[in-house]
This record gives sequence, C-alpha cells and structure tokens, in this order.
Amino acid sequence: MIQNAKVLVAQGGGPTAVINQSFVGVVEEARRYSGVERIYGAIGGVAGIVAEEFYDLTMATAANLERVANTPSSGLRSTRVKPDQAFCEEVFKVLKAHGINYFFYIGGNDSSDTVRIINEAAAANNYDLVAVHIPKTVDNDLVCNDHTPGFGSAARFVAQAFMGVNLDNRALPGVYIGVIMGRHAGFLTASSALARVFPDDGPHLIYLPERVFDTKQFIEDVKAMYAKHGRVIVAVSEGIQDENGTAIITKLAKEVEKDAHGNVQLSGTGALGDLLADEVKANTDIARVRADTFGYLQRSFVGVVSDVDQREARDVARRAVQYAILDGKSGSVTINRVGNYAVEYNLRPLEDIAAKTKHMPDEFINENGNDVTQAFIDYCKPLLGSNLPQVARVSAPKVAKIINHEK
Amino acid sequence: MIQNAKVLVAQGGGPTAVINQSFVGVVEEARRYSGVERIYGAIGGVAGIVAEEFYDLTMATAANLERVANTPSSGLRSTRVKPDQAFCEEVFKVLKAHGINYFFYIGGNDSSDTVRIINEAAAANNYDLVAVHIPKTVDNDLVCNDHTPGFGSAARFVAQAFMGVNLDNRALPGVYIGVIMGRHAGFLTASSALARVFPDDGPHLIYLPERVFDTKQFIEDVKAMYAKHGRVIVAVSEGIQDENGTAIITKLAKEVEKDAHGNVQLSGTGALGDLLADEVKANTDIARVRADTFGYLQRSFVGVVSDVDQREARDVARRAVQYAILDGKSGSVTINRVGNYAVEYNLRPLEDIAAKTKHMPDEFINENGNDVTQAFIDYCKPLLGSNLPQVARVSAPKVAKIINHEK
Repeated sequence: MIQNAKVLVAQGGGPTAVINQSFVGVVEEARRYSGVERIYGAIGGVAGIVAEEFYDLTMATAANLERVANTPSSGLRSTRVKPDQAFCEEVFKVLKAHGINYFFYIGGNDSSDTVRIINEAAAANNYDLVAVHIPKTVDNDLVCNDHTPGFGSAARFVAQAFMGVNLDNRALPGVYIGVIMGRHAGFLTASSALARVFPDDGPHLIYLPERVFDTKQFIEDVKAMYAKHGRVIVAVSEGIQDENGTAIITKLAKEVEKDAHGNVQLSGTGALGDLLADEVKANTDIARVRADTFGYLQRSFVGVVSDVDQREARDVARRAVQYAILDGKSGSVTINRVGNYAVEYNLRPLEDIAAKTKHMPDEFINENGNDVTQAFIDYCKPLLGSNLPQVARVSAPKVAKIINHEK
Repeated sequence: MIQNAKVLVAQGGGPTAVINQSFVGVVEEARRYSGVERIYGAIGGVAGIVAEEFYDLTMATAANLERVANTPSSGLRSTRVKPDQAFCEEVFKVLKAHGINYFFYIGGNDSSDTVRIINEAAAANNYDLVAVHIPKTVDNDLVCNDHTPGFGSAARFVAQAFMGVNLDNRALPGVYIGVIMGRHAGFLTASSALARVFPDDGPHLIYLPERVFDTKQFIEDVKAMYAKHGRVIVAVSEGIQDENGTAIITKLAKEVEKDAHGNVQLSGTGALGDLLADEVKANTDIARVRADTFGYLQRSFVGVVSDVDQREARDVARRAVQYAILDGKSGSVTINRVGNYAVEYNLRPLEDIAAKTKHMPDEFINENGNDVTQAFIDYCKPLLGSNLPQVARVSAPKVAKIINHEK
C-alpha cells in the first residue's frame, strides 16, 4: 500500500439521483486507510482537473458528506468534455504536480473511455497511477453490468410518473405520449411498464430504440389500443430510430445540436413528442392528444429515489477503493446480479466497458416491438426499491339506470 | 333534515393529487347522517350524470375509500363538458328520476359555474336541490379562497422539480427553461421559488401571466443572470402573454386547439419551451440551452403530495356536507387563512366564485416582473406541507493551485 497517498475523485457526464452516494462512498472508504493522506474532489470532472479546481475533501465533515450523499445530481459538478491526447497531457501535468496516486471517475460509457485514455496516457508517461471507473448512468447501458447506479431511481421516477399519467388519462381520456430519456438503450422507457397495476392500466404501448420505429405501424397501434380502451398512453424513447438508423427527432429538427462526443441533443426539447402527437392528430379522429417530454426531471428529481439504488451506488464505490488501494488494480467495477435479489461487485478491464453500449436484450421486448415482456418487469422490479406508492380504484356497484336503461 | 335522502358527488375539470380526498370527505361525512339513505358517485362529472353512470358508494368499504383518497387524479373520472341550458334539462331529468337531494361538485372556476347553472335550473324547475361547489384547482385561481386544494401538492412537485433542476444545471451549466401550468394565474409557476436554498440557487427568473412578457426584455434578463451566475434557470408560466393579451404560445402554434370552455390548449405540447429556447440560442452566444415542459406530471404525480393539502381537501368537503345537510344551504365552500398557519371554511354564494379568476396580487411579484417577493414565499411555504426534502452542497476548502496559480 502506498504511503502518504493522495486520492482524487471526480464525476462525469449527466447527473443521477445517487451519483453523490458513489462520490461519498469513495471518500468514506478511502478514509479507512492510514496510508491515505489527502482526498481531493475535482470540481467539474476532467475539465476541473486541468483547471486545478479541487476541493480538499479531507476537511469535509462526515455529516456534510452524508447530507450530500442524499442530494441528487453531481455535488462535484460535471463535464461533457471528452479528453483527447493533448487534453490528457494537461491532466497528467496536474496529477503529477499534486502527487495523485489514485483516481476514481464516476460516469457512464463516455466517462469509462475517459478513464481508459487517461490510464493509457499514464502508462505512456511512466506515471504511477491507479485509475478506477465507477459505473453511473440512468440509461443503464453499460456492458458487463446487470444494471448501473442511477437507473433504479430514474426508473422509479418514470414508473411513478406513469402511475399518475395513467390516473390522469383515465379521468380525462385521450392519447397521451410521454417521451423518456435513453439515447441508444430503452431500459428507462421500458420501466414505465412498472406503473401498471390494473389490467387496463397504461402505458399501453412502449417504443424503444432497439426496434425500428415505423410511423404507420405506430398509428395502427394507437388506433387498436384506442378501440380497446377508449384511451391510449404511449411511452416512447427519445432515441427511437427509423429503418435506416436515423433518429426520428432529426427528421423534424431544423438544426441538430451535437455535444463533444458527437451525440445529437435529444433531451431539453419537446419536439419529438409534439411530432408524434401531430401524427396521431393528422391520422386518426381522436380529438384529445397530448405529449409530455420528461426531460431533466427524471434524472435529478429531489424526493424520488430507490433505496436499493442508493445502497448499491455507495457500495460499488467502496469496492472500487478496495480494488485500487488494497489490490493496486485499475479497471471498471461492475454490478452483477446473484439470486433474486442480491448483487456482487467485480473489477473488469477498462477496455471491456469503455465506449460500449448495452441494449435491451430480445427477451425483454415483445414480439410486436411495442411493449416489454414479463421478464423485463421481473428484472426491473427490485431496482425500484422499497415502498413504491400504491394506487387504488373505487370498488362499488353501479346504480341501475332509470331513463337510459334501454340505451 | 331530509329523510331517505340521496347524495350525489362528482368531480369536474383537471385532476389534482388530492381531489379524491374531497370526494371521500363527502362520502365519509354524509355517512354520519341517519337521514342519508344512498350516496352516489357520478362517473365522469356532469356528463356522467346525463348518461346515468353512477357508482353506489353506499356499498364502498371504508378501507377502499381510504386507499382511493390517497390516490391522485379523479377516482370518479372527470369531464370538460360545460353544460348549457339544454344540457341542464337532461341533468335534471336524471336527478329527479333518481331522487337526488344533495349534489356536491368538486372542481375549479368552470365547475363552480356549472354548479351555478344547475342550481338556477333546479330553481326554475321547482326542483328541491341543495348544490354545493367544493374548490379544487392546481392553478389556485378561485376568488374568495386563500388557496385551493390541489395547489399545495402541485406546488410541492414544482418546488421539488426545480430543486433537482437547479442541482442538475449547477453540475452542467447552461440555460434551463421550465414551463409550468397556470393559464391565467402564476401561482404554480411562482412556487418554483420555494426550491431555493442557497443564495445563487435557481430559478433565477420567473415569468407569470400577470405581467406582460416582452421577449427582448427576457433575453436581456437571461444575459444579465448568465453574466452573474454562469448559468440561468427560468420558470415560465404556460399562459404568458404579450402586451395585447395574446398568449405567447399562439404566436408559434400553427393550429390552436380549444376546449368546450373556449380555452386554448396550453399543456400537452412542448412548443412554448422550445420557442423560448430558440430565442435564447438566436440572441445570445450561450451554447447549452434546454427547455422542459412539466405538463401533466405536476398535477397527478404519484408519491409527491402535501399533507396539509390532503388534510384541507378532506376537511373542506366534510364542511360542504355539513352546510348542505345541516343547514340546507347551497353555495361554494371557501378556504380562508387565519393566523400562521391555520384555515377556516366558509360558505359563499355561487355567484361570488363562479367563472371568476383570481390572479397573483401585486405584492407577490417583484418590481421588474421577473421574480416573486418574500411575501409570496411566506404565503406559499405552509401549503407545501411537512418534510420537504433537503439538499446539501459540499463544504470543504479549495486546494491551492500549483500549475495555474498565476492564471
């Protein structure tokens, strides 16, 4: 074990409801080792490292850290910067100058690739660094992981939202379209299915980026469900694509915005929902058609969180510190399901995870590609955590009609 | 007191998180009176009455009703129908045929007008009916009321949402625009201010329908706040209007949809948020601009509710039944604040409430018309209920820079 060691922790990419559990898990675990002298937190991800913007978390109180752990979004702030070779040289200058021995980066597949690049650059510079990637993403799209911290809480938000949407739509029927985050993976959109309690509850249709979205088939599906239920609730991923792999939203957007990773901006606009609502209005005789885009509410909402997600986000970070400090190993810590329901954490080579995307497996999607299967519901249910709110319907006999009894 | 009496309860207009507390309050209170023989619930508001769609709630169990009371949205379903004279004749035929003596209608200002019309038609038909309007609206825009059931829970949702949005935007800075419900009254949009904890927390700008929205001034405001904070969170009402009283959204929408009350459709579309985001992108050099429309999530979300709102929604309905059955009086029950914080309930003539709209008073809006005052925050705070989630920031010293110390 290195003596007088310095630990650095940072957060990258989009925030989640439990990402601070992971950052606090790193600090809490690192404090257990007498060889650790200082624990720094980079303010604003790798961009913060280059700018030498560090908190000295050695001086943060346990009470403060515990409150931060229970606060959603990245308490150390974040970045969308994707480091190239030149950027990495800047990172190393700073890591070397501050004598950082252990680097923990909490993030998704873009962030895991960042750790990989930094780790390679460290080796090329003969810099002795142990760098571990800690998983995080509401999209749940990291390979080698059963699921990722942040997903359970976002899925819980989506499920609770659709419970309410279902009740709202039952009171004032029509077509409701909810657009959910998930660029390439449909897990979060699929979690809307967990809102169902009664057999006729919505969402009645679920469209995922893993299946080709055909607008004509969508209209046919809506018509069929409307005929059946007198109302239709649709959950649709922001990332749905046509048969050529073109995002449906780009068919509408005048100007497509891309981030540093080359990703098209999908969230923060209601365009896709409005486009789909217009399609329904134009091609059916259904009067009431509404669309909501859940947007940024679903990943950082204060007060809706999965306790299972919180616990795992903390533990996966503690385990990352153990792998780094006790074993001296770089890599990516993964979450793997054992039994029903428990998890174990494993260290994998960064190359296995970095910049790869996990998709919804076929057994989670129904044959028509417009719903999920029971296998998905069984998979997702434990991740939402304890004490999911309950909903009820009036249970009472109908009164016999007097005037209209012949109608 | 009428013997062998029949009570009818119905729900109108948009759902809220606590509207079932009121419906269950009617049933619970009516059961106390030996003169009440039957309690019916109209399925789908006044439209359900005409169709003779009634539950016999006499046969609903207390346990079922209690679970329904804690379920958001209208458990008896709702309607947007506005009865004209002919429609009222149909209503009376049914009320008479079923021997309804007491009618309770839970709704907003459109629904109070419905009660007024039905009550007048009852008198014109010499039909002996006691009809009481029970307040409900997330818009909080009923005159003669300090506030209305449903508002507190929706305000809590908006506040919790902006807490998360603020943390998200702090992690990945930019301009964020959140579009909130409230056609003519800005109360719900204003409640976003309750999200603020730290002095630089958003929302940094709040635009209400009570003030003229000037797009140029909006851009200037955004620039000024961006210069100050390096990020800007905007809360804007769906009902903002220009100097001619034209809704800003209608300037964009190709086709404006209106309901039976002549109201333009404002919710269920992301158009206004996208329009405002485009204005910011076109007129500033800020790269990251995002807009979310909170839409239907804010009024029926399962799991975010104000306990104060729940309690009052139940009590105002119990009081309505007391006025009707014990005093034989028609009218509208109002909620009035006494002290800090308690309320009392009063019966007002229907004409005082019906089809009128309360706006944010001047003392709740700042001089520039782009924020609320402390008076509004003091007014709104108790309505959000107990145990609002807490958020925290990292409290730790910064590390001295080594390489960049001269920069």
